[in-house]
Amino acid sequence: MKRAVCFGEIMGRLNPEGYLRFSQANTCEISYAGGEANVAVSLANFGLETSFVTKLPQNDLAACAVRELRKYGVQTDHIVYGGDRLGMYYVERGASQRPSKVIYDRKYSSVSQAVPQDFDWKNILQGASWFHFTGITPALGEHLPEICLQAVQEAQKRGITVSCDLNYRKNLWSREQAGTVMAQLMPYVDVCIANEEDAADVFGIKAGNTDLLSGHISREGYQQVAKSLQERFGFKKVAITLRGSLSANDNRWGAMLFDGGQSYFSKEYLIHIVDRVGGGDSFAAGLIYALLNNYACDQAVEFAAAASCLKHTIEHDFNLVTVDEVNTLMQGDGSGRVQR
Amino acid sequence: MKRAVCFGEIMGRLNPEGYLRFSQANTCEISYAGGEANVAVSLANFGLETSFVTKLPQNDLAACAVRELRKYGVQTDHIVYGGDRLGMYYVERGASQRPSKVIYDRKYSSVSQAVPQDFDWKNILQGASWFHFTGITPALGEHLPEICLQAVQEAQKRGITVSCDLNYRKNLWSREQAGTVMAQLMPYVDVCIANEEDAADVFGIKAGNTDLLSGHISREGYQQVAKSLQERFGFKKVAITLRGSLSANDNRWGAMLFDGGQSYFSKEYLIHIVDRVGGGDSFAAGLIYALLNNYACDQAVEFAAAASCLKHTIEHDFNLVTVDEVNTLMQGDGSGRVQR
Amino acid sequence: MKRAVCFGEIMGRLNPEGYLRFSQANTCEISYAGGEANVAVSLANFGLETSFVTKLPQNDLAACAVRELRKYGVQTDHIVYGGDRLGMYYVERGASQRPSKVIYDRKYSSVSQAVPQDFDWKNILQGASWFHFTGITPALGEHLPEICLQAVQEAQKRGITVSCDLNYRKNLWSREQAGTVMAQLMPYVDVCIANEEDAADVFGIKAGNTDLLSGHISREGYQQVAKSLQERFGFKKVAITLRGSLSANDNRWGAMLFDGGQSYFSKEYLIHIVDRVGGGDSFAAGLIYALLNNYACDQAVEFAAAASCLKHTIEHDFNLVTVDEVNTLMQGDGSGRVQR
Amino acid sequence: MKRAVCFGEIMGRLNPEGYLRFSQANTCEISYAGGEANVAVSLANFGLETSFVTKLPQNDLAACAVRELRKYGVQTDHIVYGGDRLGMYYVERGASQRPSKVIYDRKYSSVSQAVPQDFDWKNILQGASWFHFTGITPALGEHLPEICLQAVQEAQKRGITVSCDLNYRKNLWSREQAGTVMAQLMPYVDVCIANEEDAADVFGIKAGNTDLLSGHISREGYQQVAKSLQERFGFKKVAITLRGSLSANDNRWGAMLFDGGQSYFSKEYLIHIVDRVGGGDSFAAGLIYALLNNYACDQAVEFAAAASCLKHTIEHDFNLVTVDEVNTLMQGDGSGRVQR
Amino acid sequence: MKRAVCFGEIMGRLNPEGYLRFSQANTCEISYAGGEANVAVSLANFGLETSFVTKLPQNDLAACAVRELRKYGVQTDHIVYGGDRLGMYYVERGASQRPSKVIYDRKYSSVSQAVPQDFDWKNILQGASWFHFTGITPALGEHLPEICLQAVQEAQKRGITVSCDLNYRKNLWSREQAGTVMAQLMPYVDVCIANEEDAADVFGIKAGNTDLLSGHISREGYQQVAKSLQERFGFKKVAITLRGSLSANDNRWGAMLFDGGQSYFSKEYLIHIVDRVGGGDSFAAGLIYALLNNYACDQAVEFAAAASCLKHTIEHDFNLVTVDEVNTLMQGDGSGRVQR
Amino acid sequence: MKRAVCFGEIMGRLNPEGYLRFSQANTCEISYAGGEANVAVSLANFGLETSFVTKLPQNDLAACAVRELRKYGVQTDHIVYGGDRLGMYYVERGASQRPSKVIYDRKYSSVSQAVPQDFDWKNILQGASWFHFTGITPALGEHLPEICLQAVQEAQKRGITVSCDLNYRKNLWSREQAGTVMAQLMPYVDVCIANEEDAADVFGIKAGNTDLLSGHISREGYQQVAKSLQERFGFKKVAITLRGSLSANDNRWGAMLFDGGQSYFSKEYLIHIVDRVGGGDSFAAGLIYALLNNYACDQAVEFAAAASCLKHTIEHDFNLVTVDEVNTLMQGDGSGRVQR
Repeated sequence: MKRAVCFGEIMGRLNPEGYLRFSQANTCEISYAGGEANVAVSLANFGLETSFVTKLPQNDLAACAVRELRKYGVQTDHIVYGGDRLGMYYVERGASQRPSKVIYDRKYSSVSQAVPQDFDWKNILQGASWFHFTGITPALGEHLPEICLQAVQEAQKRGITVSCDLNYRKNLWSREQAGTVMAQLMPYVDVCIANEEDAADVFGIKAGNTDLLSGHISREGYQQVAKSLQERFGFKKVAITLRGSLSANDNRWGAMLFDGGQSYFSKEYLIHIVDRVGGGDSFAAGLIYALLNNYACDQAVEFAAAASCLKHTIEHDFNLVTVDEVNTLMQGDGSGRVQR
Repeated sequence: MKRAVCFGEIMGRLNPEGYLRFSQANTCEISYAGGEANVAVSLANFGLETSFVTKLPQNDLAACAVRELRKYGVQTDHIVYGGDRLGMYYVERGASQRPSKVIYDRKYSSVSQAVPQDFDWKNILQGASWFHFTGITPALGEHLPEICLQAVQEAQKRGITVSCDLNYRKNLWSREQAGTVMAQLMPYVDVCIANEEDAADVFGIKAGNTDLLSGHISREGYQQVAKSLQERFGFKKVAITLRGSLSANDNRWGAMLFDGGQSYFSKEYLIHIVDRVGGGDSFAAGLIYALLNNYACDQAVEFAAAASCLKHTIEHDFNLVTVDEVNTLMQGDGSGRVQR
Repeated sequence: MKRAVCFGEIMGRLNPEGYLRFSQANTCEISYAGGEANVAVSLANFGLETSFVTKLPQNDLAACAVRELRKYGVQTDHIVYGGDRLGMYYVERGASQRPSKVIYDRKYSSVSQAVPQDFDWKNILQGASWFHFTGITPALGEHLPEICLQAVQEAQKRGITVSCDLNYRKNLWSREQAGTVMAQLMPYVDVCIANEEDAADVFGIKAGNTDLLSGHISREGYQQVAKSLQERFGFKKVAITLRGSLSANDNRWGAMLFDGGQSYFSKEYLIHIVDRVGGGDSFAAGLIYALLNNYACDQAVEFAAAASCLKHTIEHDFNLVTVDEVNTLMQGDGSGRVQR
Repeated sequence: MKRAVCFGEIMGRLNPEGYLRFSQANTCEISYAGGEANVAVSLANFGLETSFVTKLPQNDLAACAVRELRKYGVQTDHIVYGGDRLGMYYVERGASQRPSKVIYDRKYSSVSQAVPQDFDWKNILQGASWFHFTGITPALGEHLPEICLQAVQEAQKRGITVSCDLNYRKNLWSREQAGTVMAQLMPYVDVCIANEEDAADVFGIKAGNTDLLSGHISREGYQQVAKSLQERFGFKKVAITLRGSLSANDNRWGAMLFDGGQSYFSKEYLIHIVDRVGGGDSFAAGLIYALLNNYACDQAVEFAAAASCLKHTIEHDFNLVTVDEVNTLMQGDGSGRVQR
Repeated sequence: MKRAVCFGEIMGRLNPEGYLRFSQANTCEISYAGGEANVAVSLANFGLETSFVTKLPQNDLAACAVRELRKYGVQTDHIVYGGDRLGMYYVERGASQRPSKVIYDRKYSSVSQAVPQDFDWKNILQGASWFHFTGITPALGEHLPEICLQAVQEAQKRGITVSCDLNYRKNLWSREQAGTVMAQLMPYVDVCIANEEDAADVFGIKAGNTDLLSGHISREGYQQVAKSLQERFGFKKVAITLRGSLSANDNRWGAMLFDGGQSYFSKEYLIHIVDRVGGGDSFAAGLIYALLNNYACDQAVEFAAAASCLKHTIEHDFNLVTVDEVNTLMQGDGSGRVQR
Repeated sequence: MKRAVCFGEIMGRLNPEGYLRFSQANTCEISYAGGEANVAVSLANFGLETSFVTKLPQNDLAACAVRELRKYGVQTDHIVYGGDRLGMYYVERGASQRPSKVIYDRKYSSVSQAVPQDFDWKNILQGASWFHFTGITPALGEHLPEICLQAVQEAQKRGITVSCDLNYRKNLWSREQAGTVMAQLMPYVDVCIANEEDAADVFGIKAGNTDLLSGHISREGYQQVAKSLQERFGFKKVAITLRGSLSANDNRWGAMLFDGGQSYFSKEYLIHIVDRVGGGDSFAAGLIYALLNNYACDQAVEFAAAASCLKHTIEHDFNLVTVDEVNTLMQGDGSGRVQR
């Protein structure tokens, strides 16, 4: 079986129940999540052997995060222990015109203070076919850019496909810092994934004709973005997710995949949202699964879009769907008829 | 007061809260439900004297089911005790493109192992005006076809109106088995109720021009189905519910009633769904109530459609609405304005 | 800082969780609410110094209501203690075609039995810039019309702006009683606020061309209503909220403000509702805040409409939003994109 | 089958979950309870045909109370409808040295405003063997003493055994009022039930040598109390429950039954309490069941004490136990070993 | 690392929250449990490589059970799929004099219908040091005695230590059936574990001088029981747990271990119980861990008793404690002082 | 009215519900707490004008903490804003022999990174009669010893009584660090409060004859400790709380107060615990209230002990009791009898 390795952070996630605002909540739902951990769980649910790599403190909360990964079949043997704390983040669910709100409390987390010696990439990447990280990982702390560089260089040496979701986070670093660091890592990346804003934020590459707040999205503009990215860094493939935010409850969702020559657009879904956090990660996982299994580009982008469409209907960050469920939707049944 | 008798199964129903998938749930909502029990509760809520007949094991769980029936005013004196277990079923609520999922665990239930001697139909049907069962009842176990036959024959003898909701369940029997058994029972049935798939599944009678997954439904096709059913079995009336599944959250919902001559179509409702399980049963109950009270066909189908529209806004299987509430909607107020 | 005073009732509010009907609920959410208390909390959340005036019994439940006011920064020093009970009200949340249901149990509450000597308006209104009450307040009990009259007379003496939300409640008094009492109070009111039904209910002033159940609303008709109100009572401003009830889940929502000469209409929002109770109160609070801060009429009505649009996305009666959040929506971002 | 009739009030009961104080609670458990309703439910659970008589308003909350009675098999046909409100009460559970707190909001309830014409006792008591009321019933409102008098007179005429639990409530009336009214009713009572304080509160009959706060209880003292009661009013039997409050969590619990000649003491139980409200009512029900079934005095008091011991382990007011469960404890197995 | 294999059933477990009786519950806690699965999870929590062997149906509920095992580190590769259903069981928590109640719904479960061909013991037991089953396993179904026999014979061949917890369940088989089947399996068992009733139920070997209902337990009696068991079947070690049931909330708990020569008694704990189901299984796991790690008998019984003491303080069946936590208690700190 | 000022940290507190271990929890209760904030809330509940001083980040979570303080009447005007994060802590409730577990995640909190310029003590302490801090405050961060020193020097200058609860936390600093820093602050302290371990941890002053794990406590030993503390630092009063940990559920609890001459011991309470976190803080608050109100020493220690006894029966850290409730217990009624 093919083996995938994901590197990044897993945090505790706390959110008030339903649509309660923080100040109304006496209880919170607790789950565990993080851009790269979300991808790992999704891949394991698709049946891939998947390993998640991070650094965690030695306490009961971190143990909960590890147990949650194991529950969904993710291997946790390469997790390193040490440091002060498990990162946390807080989500308040929006509705209609009120946006969801995310408060990060991930500063000083164990992985943010990791050093290169913590990770033995030769060992970690042994037998792997795919390595995935996101733009969050190098932004976490002082030594993370170097650690990421060592990882992707080792991956390249071993002929492992490398994917990166640009995932720009303005709370973690400035556009300038992101641009500089990511430009050093991109040459080792085979598959670049971005949402409709990332390329502009990180590399200043903008789509014309698009107004994110109005929900209008320009297909041509994003083809141009993909092409520019590919030309600048030599990616084999560039995938861009396209979200039309009608409201906090209803989104349009689709994606395109550019293979250096042609652009393939998925179906566009109109989604009534349960929880949209982790949507992009579920797309990345769908794409990795499809490409690892040699789907043609048009099928790969459909699989990834369908997988991530389903994620929006699932509580918390993890995309708890099977390949069969994705296939059903991808093949056209989005009617939601009861399955008995 | 007129008295109705419903015969079938009542099960425990477990569902994770909200939109949680099974694997995310630490707690489940527990309620009690079953096609014919749902009809009984609905009729009792409309003010009819209603008796539910089944076989249950002698344990605390079955006692809970009985208490729930009593709470809503259903008579439980003709329930027979014995056998191993209360059937259970599990519901995972879908959202948007993700369908709801039902897992049945009803095999070996007490009623599935009932024998003809368990039920004294002469006594049970005394003073009854209406007898209702569904296509699930004879599918439950070896002796159930015979038991159903005895019931409908006794009902016919006494001039009791008999209704049957075809309700095909592929987990309980094959299309062939269903076709054979149901064909023997149909001659005793006065009012046949079906959803948009049942007639095809059980008797191979299909509506043309209809694509269930796309939400498109052909009025003409269903008139033809009703006519075919009526011609084959001599029903006095045939009612068909028409569901257009836009997504797991949003459905179109309406119905038609064929009186042997003419077809009457109800208004079509666009429903934002709370819980759609039990929707068909609530239609059957609405129809029975209306026909027992001598509504004209056009009014009967409107009452039944409005009743079942409201069911979709109520948690769990039972349709907890009053005749007044159905009338308000039937007479045109579906605005949902707060009632103070 | 400017100081606002609100006078009326605060009640305990109980509602089953989610969409459960009363008879399905084993637990209820408990919160505290009331037309004028809702306005007070909203104003305090906007940063105004706000005082809520009422009469409460001396027990632990009333103490909870007071603590909830204090939590959101409302001053509670002028609350008077005595009498038998805290009013209660019960809400069952509707969905789609099933309307929400409100059951009041406020009869015999402490404030309903208040007498003029309970309130020393000279002291209460010291330093205030604004006084707000609603049509509920004088309807609560025998002496309330007189108490309200004393309050608005004292306010007028001190040059305090007075606003009144007509808020007709048919369970509290007849249209005739309301018309008589309110007509005596209106001469002291500067800003009159009403929903699309109040003017007709209280003063018999109807908008033409409007069918509330169909969701159709006539702009011209409401301009005429505002004009008639202004002409009859000499209001400086008349504001009318315009709700188009598509269903219990989806409403259109907007408002107009008439300044004696011109009518200003806000944007119209299509809202997917979380909890619509308190929607009108949140509009009143938005308008008071905007007018106290000298917004131009077009900006004031936009601020008030945006504030109350957001209220519909928040559980329970209180509008827990900040000026910044209202501004974001008012300035056009209703996309609900996640804020990280 | 023997038929029992209970007359009094049923209220909504709200309590924060677990040990939360009122001001900490965002949700409350809602149940339905009342001294005489508790007895009715208990009797129905023991298998007696039982009817509960009261007056209720015509709203959804009262309907919930009625459904709860029906769920447990209590007949609700003699309930009268009208008046303003369902009484409510609030319970905050204590622990260790912190006492539980009950806040009543029952003033102005429908039954409190009942008038003699509301109840047709001839009809209600037809076929009854037992009539039960408590000292709360006549204290509820102006006409209740007269209504109670009519009930017990009619009962006496028909040879129906009458039981009364003195149940003094200081919030409802003064000791003087209670003493006067109860003295008029007592001559019609056959079986008088009291707790360790009632006889003193209502009739000034005190037990010597007892310090309630210390948990010390004097057997001799209570024999004397029973004797005095019997001598004054001619009761056939006097039962007194004996509670030793060690803390809010742990109580000693037993009872005595005096038959005019001899006193029979039950075993004393040391109870780790789940919910002690309704404990006295469950004793009354156990006693009524036992006496109706002609248990000897020593057995009757044991049955009643065991039944009420079990009540303390059950949430909310109703005693949801069967005769078998009471027998198991009464016969000595209080070990709490798991029953598989 | 040493590897342990456990063979038996894992079921879904449903229990109302807190002390609610079944008929009061609208929601249930759902967890996964079973005598042998409980042991497996406990061993994995102690750090042993542990594999759980059973047969499960291919549905989402069974998948939940498997995920729960994986979460706690149990290997699930040898689980076989097929058959109709996942066994279920229902627990109602008792309190004080009211016993907990367990309702089994495990008949017709997949494992109960397993056949010898389902399990390839050569493969399953490869590399194992310990094999554990209980008296429940052979009682589950027709072929289970044979399957168990094959397992223990293969274990013996490979020099694997075999432990068996007698665990008599009267709902599964009669004392006679148990006696016959178990007598055939015992010769292959090295370590026999029993509670204070099992030896009498299965083999008719009784302890003198003991009254289980009174909480009195005779040390001498149990030494004699252990000796008799050892003499009859040649066990290397016999362990007996000793429970003194003071009430459903409070138990005395200890154990003895007999090594063929001497008896070693653990400390006796007075436990305030959270959830006592699974208590015996946690003892078995503690004993297996201790013996696999070559603890001396006195230390082994102390470790096992301390481990199982802690289990009583943990919700649901699984014993979620670490070796460190057991050691702390075993070494004398049962003070429950907060650990910061 | 007298005004008290408390200085320290307020954190978010998360705990799984009931007795669940962290790894079992899908939801957590969220509250806000901290040694000095707990004292402030308690004092406000006793009716004192109380101000809480700290530094908090500018985010919605910190706003929740502030709202909670305001809800209970604590003044929050002197709270300073800035820095990265709100400290958090996690509590897992123990039971019987399993201890409660606290995980702190307070490193890098805003207040831990405060600098002297953040606090203008002249302004803060204006009009204050009492200043309270604990040994946690100076341990929080680099500049906190200096900030504390400035506070107590300013307090001394103004004749404000200063109390300090030694509250040693081993996760925050070593015994040596604590000893050095605290020794510099103590000369400004009038009332020193400690638990049975603090004096030993911070200043090496030990009580003889005491075994904390066994629950045995020596009165004489603690008198000696108080005397040594008083002699070394010149305190006017020294109070020591005495906890006998019988188990996680049951503790003995009492206290002594030494006035430089004599020792006054409170009654000892046997407490069945709901939540013991915050127990020491509630004692400090009780003592401050009593001394500020000039209670005699014997009465002061009784009031403080009774107040903190009640705290153990209340969920979360805050002691939500009134002076009346404390008085009832202090005067001898700990029977927990229901208050109606």
